[in-house]
Amino acid sequence: MTRYKLVIEYDGRPFVGWQRQINGPSVQQAIEDAIEGFCQRRVTVQCAGRTDAGVHALGQVAHIDLDHDPAPDTVRDAINYHLKPAPVALLAVEQVAHDFHARFDAVARAYCYRIVNRRAPLTVDAGLAWRVAAPLDSDAMHAAAQGLVGRHDFSSFRAAECQANSPVRTLDRLTVTRDRGRIDVTASARSFLHHQVRNIVGTLCLVGTGKWTAPDLVTALEACDRSAAGPTAPPDGLYLTAVRYADEKIG
Amino acid sequence: MTRYKLVIEYDGRPFVGWQRQINGPSVQQAIEDAIEGFCQRRVTVQCAGRTDAGVHALGQVAHIDLDHDPAPDTVRDAINYHLKPAPVALLAVEQVAHDFHARFDAVARAYCYRIVNRRAPLTVDAGLAWRVAAPLDSDAMHAAAQGLVGRHDFSSFRAAECQANSPVRTLDRLTVTRDRGRIDVTASARSFLHHQVRNIVGTLCLVGTGKWTAPDLVTALEACDRSAAGPTAPPDGLYLTAVRYADEKIG
Repeated sequence: MTRYKLVIEYDGRPFVGWQRQINGPSVQQAIEDAIEGFCQRRVTVQCAGRTDAGVHALGQVAHIDLDHDPAPDTVRDAINYHLKPAPVALLAVEQVAHDFHARFDAVARAYCYRIVNRRAPLTVDAGLAWRVAAPLDSDAMHAAAQGLVGRHDFSSFRAAECQANSPVRTLDRLTVTRDRGRIDVTASARSFLHHQVRNIVGTLCLVGTGKWTAPDLVTALEACDRSAAGPTAPPDGLYLTAVRYADEKIG
Repeated sequence: MTRYKLVIEYDGRPFVGWQRQINGPSVQQAIEDAIEGFCQRRVTVQCAGRTDAGVHALGQVAHIDLDHDPAPDTVRDAINYHLKPAPVALLAVEQVAHDFHARFDAVARAYCYRIVNRRAPLTVDAGLAWRVAAPLDSDAMHAAAQGLVGRHDFSSFRAAECQANSPVRTLDRLTVTRDRGRIDVTASARSFLHHQVRNIVGTLCLVGTGKWTAPDLVTALEACDRSAAGPTAPPDGLYLTAVRYADEKIG
């Protein structure tokens, strides 16, 4: 058996999420079907971060085992061929050690949340960003966001259905930047709770519109209660941008 | 009658192009239908640059006359409301002089052509960029592109069906920039010939792959013959980004 690491990009719109589910097409199924087309064998794909319905990835990572050892570029091109027309593509494939694990070996995950801040509805970005009509003060959002960085109990930003054992996470970085009408919220941590980034973004927008102050955000964090924080931002704007392993730089 | 200037964004994928045609939906028709929904009156929309099927706009400009004088923001929001679910949106509306003409008063038009240079097929960018699998030397493309800047007979880069009286145009700016796998070709001129940007981009890719040199590009220009230049790049990557009028800065 040969183990391969896959770096995957996808448009989350047509999928019920990464994980196989009975209620619709998943990214995992699309990739497993493509591998079956290529190797005539059912293979399980293990990913680093299971994204929700409608959430995109620019740098998801997964691993697979094949019982022959084709060249990595052949694996990439063959799986991409069989993935068509699903909006999923392998950007890179490399052979890795037999004990490499995409999920358990990941030391950091990075997400970007794209907001388009304007009155007009989205056109080219529809489904690929969240349009917020009310003017947002991105500097205030960035300043307030720093109150969430570090090791905290993130229960206030955790989905009810989250299956993690602990609500404690260490947020390494949370930045809010603006380029004209586009606001990007980027977050990185070893791991995230379910809906953590979307709940943080939805709450930061309360700061951006001036409804909340930076201390209000800290109060919400300290409440350790989901109802103390703001709404969940829609999946449209969320991208898993990179997964980092020991001795690697994040993209 | 009150004249309004509209700044328009659209996703060109579902349209036969800007202009009304009998063979499918056009951007012009979508906007004229939306205005009729708002004013119960048929109004003709005059645009600055008629884009082809599949070509996008981030800053198309048009003008309309209304027989009452609603506030510009009301016009924007009402037309946007009636445009749904078409991927067309008015970004800005302003009242202008009665003799303002979106097409004839334009002093410059700017286009951006987006290339994604990689082996893997597109996912989130499908239909919104051109994927070129062969590695492109964007510095060589930029250097060669400077041979096209200035006033020239652009017959070699002009579609057979182009209706302009003269093939002579003054290309004010043509730049090729790269950000990792993304290459942007930006072009600005008072006006362009039909397919001029797409023919330039298709030909610059011959330079990017090393098939052509910078002098080959000048030879193609000087031939004044469409068959001397390279292929037409697909519409997917082309965006009309801005139209400038006297005393305005381009966006």
